[in-house]
Amino acid sequence: MLPVDLPGTVRDALLAPLVDHHCHGVRRDDLGRAGFELLISGAGSPAPPGTTHFDTPLGVAVRRWCGPLLDLEPHAPPAVYLARREELGAGEVNRRLLAGAGVVAFLVDSASQDGELLSATEMGRHGGAAADELVRVEHIERDVAASAQLAVDYLDDLGEQLTARAARAVGLKTVAGALYGLDLEGSRPARGAVIAAANRRLADPKPPLTDPVLLHYLVWSAVDVARERGLPLQFHCGLGGGLGGGLGGGLGGGLGGGLESRPGGGPLGEPHRADPARLSAFAGALQPLGVPMILLHSYPFHRQAAYLAAAFPHVYVDVGLAPPHTAAAARVIDELLELAPFHKQLFGSGACGLAETAYLGALTYRRALSRALATRIDSGEWSTADASRIAHMIGSGNARRIYRL
Amino acid sequence: MLPVDLPGTVRDALLAPLVDHHCHGVRRDDLGRAGFELLISGAGSPAPPGTTHFDTPLGVAVRRWCGPLLDLEPHAPPAVYLARREELGAGEVNRRLLAGAGVVAFLVDSASQDGELLSATEMGRHGGAAADELVRVEHIERDVAASAQLAVDYLDDLGEQLTARAARAVGLKTVAGALYGLDLEGSRPARGAVIAAANRRLADPKPPLTDPVLLHYLVWSAVDVARERGLPLQFHCGLGGGLGGGLGGGLGGGLGGGLESRPGGGPLGEPHRADPARLSAFAGALQPLGVPMILLHSYPFHRQAAYLAAAFPHVYVDVGLAPPHTAAAARVIDELLELAPFHKQLFGSGACGLAETAYLGALTYRRALSRALATRIDSGEWSTADASRIAHMIGSGNARRIYRL
Amino acid sequence: MLPVDLPGTVRDALLAPLVDHHCHGVRRDDLGRAGFELLISGAGSPAPPGTTHFDTPLGVAVRRWCGPLLDLEPHAPPAVYLARREELGAGEVNRRLLAGAGVVAFLVDSASQDGELLSATEMGRHGGAAADELVRVEHIERDVAASAQLAVDYLDDLGEQLTARAARAVGLKTVAGALYGLDLEGSRPARGAVIAAANRRLADPKPPLTDPVLLHYLVWSAVDVARERGLPLQFHCGLGGGLGGGLGGGLGGGLGGGLESRPGGGPLGEPHRADPARLSAFAGALQPLGVPMILLHSYPFHRQAAYLAAAFPHVYVDVGLAPPHTAAAARVIDELLELAPFHKQLFGSGACGLAETAYLGALTYRRALSRALATRIDSGEWSTADASRIAHMIGSGNARRIYRL
Repeated sequence: MLPVDLPGTVRDALLAPLVDHHCHGVRRDDLGRAGFELLISGAGSPAPPGTTHFDTPLGVAVRRWCGPLLDLEPHAPPAVYLARREELGAGEVNRRLLAGAGVVAFLVDSASQDGELLSATEMGRHGGAAADELVRVEHIERDVAASAQLAVDYLDDLGEQLTARAARAVGLKTVAGALYGLDLEGSRPARGAVIAAANRRLADPKPPLTDPVLLHYLVWSAVDVARERGLPLQFHCGLGGGLGGGLGGGLGGGLGGGLESRPGGGPLGEPHRADPARLSAFAGALQPLGVPMILLHSYPFHRQAAYLAAAFPHVYVDVGLAPPHTAAAARVIDELLELAPFHKQLFGSGACGLAETAYLGALTYRRALSRALATRIDSGEWSTADASRIAHMIGSGNARRIYRL
Repeated sequence: MLPVDLPGTVRDALLAPLVDHHCHGVRRDDLGRAGFELLISGAGSPAPPGTTHFDTPLGVAVRRWCGPLLDLEPHAPPAVYLARREELGAGEVNRRLLAGAGVVAFLVDSASQDGELLSATEMGRHGGAAADELVRVEHIERDVAASAQLAVDYLDDLGEQLTARAARAVGLKTVAGALYGLDLEGSRPARGAVIAAANRRLADPKPPLTDPVLLHYLVWSAVDVARERGLPLQFHCGLGGGLGGGLGGGLGGGLGGGLESRPGGGPLGEPHRADPARLSAFAGALQPLGVPMILLHSYPFHRQAAYLAAAFPHVYVDVGLAPPHTAAAARVIDELLELAPFHKQLFGSGACGLAETAYLGALTYRRALSRALATRIDSGEWSTADASRIAHMIGSGNARRIYRL
Repeated sequence: MLPVDLPGTVRDALLAPLVDHHCHGVRRDDLGRAGFELLISGAGSPAPPGTTHFDTPLGVAVRRWCGPLLDLEPHAPPAVYLARREELGAGEVNRRLLAGAGVVAFLVDSASQDGELLSATEMGRHGGAAADELVRVEHIERDVAASAQLAVDYLDDLGEQLTARAARAVGLKTVAGALYGLDLEGSRPARGAVIAAANRRLADPKPPLTDPVLLHYLVWSAVDVARERGLPLQFHCGLGGGLGGGLGGGLGGGLGGGLESRPGGGPLGEPHRADPARLSAFAGALQPLGVPMILLHSYPFHRQAAYLAAAFPHVYVDVGLAPPHTAAAARVIDELLELAPFHKQLFGSGACGLAETAYLGALTYRRALSRALATRIDSGEWSTADASRIAHMIGSGNARRIYRL
């Protein structure tokens, strides 16, 4: 599995069980070719005529690495892969791939209420691992907006629901970066403005929340709850908005639009506004509160994310779905290692919709980190002991500490 | 020519003739040292005293790789290279270098009307290749602005000229990213605003178009024509604005200011505004229309370009003049391969002014891609069959499909 | 010291004495663990409970590379390293590390007036090198704001002080990029607006200058003085704002807040606004004046900085503290080499607070450049003669020319 020779202790550290500190549920049902292609693509629509979404870094990696777990030769053609997947059935495929990831605990954004996706508990059971929940605050808001009648109820319900859900969770999560952008203001919106915005929202509660006042209110409410309960708050950053499962349409209500998407403007928001560098003023405002901020994905702005993790004591990072989606993950992992303190980096697959992404998340992470460590050990820059210790920290130790697992 | 050992089929795929889907004409006349130096630099002015533009990645690559095609040893000094170039004459040099590129078809932005540059037809003849035209819409506008008297004529003429020129072309191209920025709005400007802007324009039609209303009108007109005729629309992206031939001055009217430049502010616009991530809202608006959008160059924002190509079914990418200008192209090509679907990537040299850039564009592309493929094959990540197939797709297959060659 | 085999002339060029064209003084006193940790971190605060700032790329590099200069084995634990450092005493440690850097001249931003840091003269004496001063214009302004009574005096004093200090310096420097951002306007602020802003400033002269009008006035005043005296003007760019010594707090008045920091928003400004691409309009305005602009650090926007150096005849670049802080510097140096003309690149350690950063700046630069040259020589892309010549240019020749040393 590892592409390089490494001293035994380093190898063991790399192969030790991981904590996947951020993923989504995967589909429980069998998928036809069209559905599967949508889930390996970020386009939210079929590939153009004469092409296939299998002709992507992720598509090639699925055939190469996941095939053998389904008893196929590496590089089997798409049709063969999908036929074997159907033959085994989604349950068995999910069990093999999730267990193959070598994960000891999944922290699952179980935002989707519909039954198409495995719940956190099911993710753990299929993967032979523990599982805990992350509360996506935008989904709490969606439910509250759908049921509240008055602005004051909306605000009360939001607070109650956030508190209640957080009591059963290990962390909170916001996708405001995809819905609005990460240039969040470092102060809370005024009560009057929030009431007015809530009234507007209740008049048309259907679409995802994009009102800047309410988004700020929601994020600050999440901060308050996180602070009370000692939980970290995850921020969706970078270009993940359109990846990981046909977001913004394609699969209908189940996944489509539900995961990390944004209304209008196609399958993604404005990617440059999701640059985590824009979070710096907000991060400065949060620093005295002691709430850990966790920057997810961040690609291709992961160097900026690493810098924030170096500059702020309460900021943490992963590169999420970048390694499985880019397949050639060694450089991405290595760029994060350039500047991010080792006690600030986390492993998270960002897996979404397909068990393949959970498996490939763990595999590409391990392969990429093994190369990075081998390079440093071979050149004499790092000791073997440091390399092992750091692999353990990033793979699971940091997550255990931050999420209090 | 290729720096790595590869299986025969992959090697053949890399050496197969390329479609250069975006280049400019090269100078037909002999160039003195000053003129040549300007064309290998992006500075639009001579190198500072005591220095030379040959001390650049492109300058070193010219001596290394182009010298042998002129019967010189690799690394011959600049003076020797230029003397030999003069001795052979521009015609012979152009023939050797363009033919040496191994290109089966050049798609040429033949915006410049003056006779200093080879036309599309001549590019093809010198290079032993087919040739087709790309219509730069800003140049149509320039001509129309110079002749129209009334706003209504200006608008009519613009539409007529776009339609007439597009009838003989394989694609359209806009440099609005360099003139204004890529944060184009996803809706058409109002008719009244366009008329008012056209009146302002006709009062001072000389300089390149920078009025935001007219630029939006022009781009949307290009979209309409592209849609009617089933043509792709190319967008100049990233930091290419000042490269490729002394833009913004230096060589006078021939090249200077004419290729990809911007008035005011020196030889480039505001590079951060040419980040293709800023195109996402506009791309979302165009998605239902089915017009292929092709992002050119994009360096150093090529990872963002790759993401748009992954997220939108109608977005395509190249890295254009980045490989020849950076010389160390392996990383740039590899970063594009991280996320861009393989059926969305194109080869384009972005060549401009010098036949050396067309030759080096093809050479550095082939060398860089060969390294990327060898790495993936050697590590077992890609099969040989996939590697060959993907090399064919990027080198020519995708362009044939999209431009209907 | 060099990780690769190289021809003798190239090796000699890499090991030749460097001009460190931008650094700060280092602490003259012995440091306890808390103080030392703050200085190797960008966080401006202690590492979170259970972690240490030694678990960073810089922390590992200190143990690996600096340990042996203090007679320790490579990779000695932090406690051992700090005990040995204390045993030797700061004076001896500074002498060993500064001399070990192999620098022939330090150009020192000696902004800090307190006695905790070695002066430029002392830096030279400890390092067995020449030393010259860089004038940080924001510190001149700080002193003038603290003493002036009337706006007109403030402006007069500022001009006089700038002129007087510049007369003894080899260059000027501004950190407006960290205080405000690099989207500086290409024209001078109006006199009336400057007087009004000066009056506001004098009413509350304590905090670092952030008023946009006065910052523009200050930068333009620096341009005038630089032009008169033929000096270059350095611009702090990129994410260096929070690195290099507990900026924005932590160590109190000595270093804290004094080096490259920004009020409000934690230990850094808004990193995305320090992207040097935003300087392009300002660079265009300065081009006719002939004042060399030198872009410092720029990481992770160094590719944009390289582009500006390619596009403008008066723009120069280094990657400053990125190599020592990222430790894995090879890619960063290589990315600068992609596009920056070789006569535009400079070596600067950006060292700050700790002699370790000066030593590691030189070491990581030499190691990284040696890899870049070896790659190019081995693949036949560069000749040995070019490689030697370019190593000399970047290591010292360019600085000698630009600063007239």
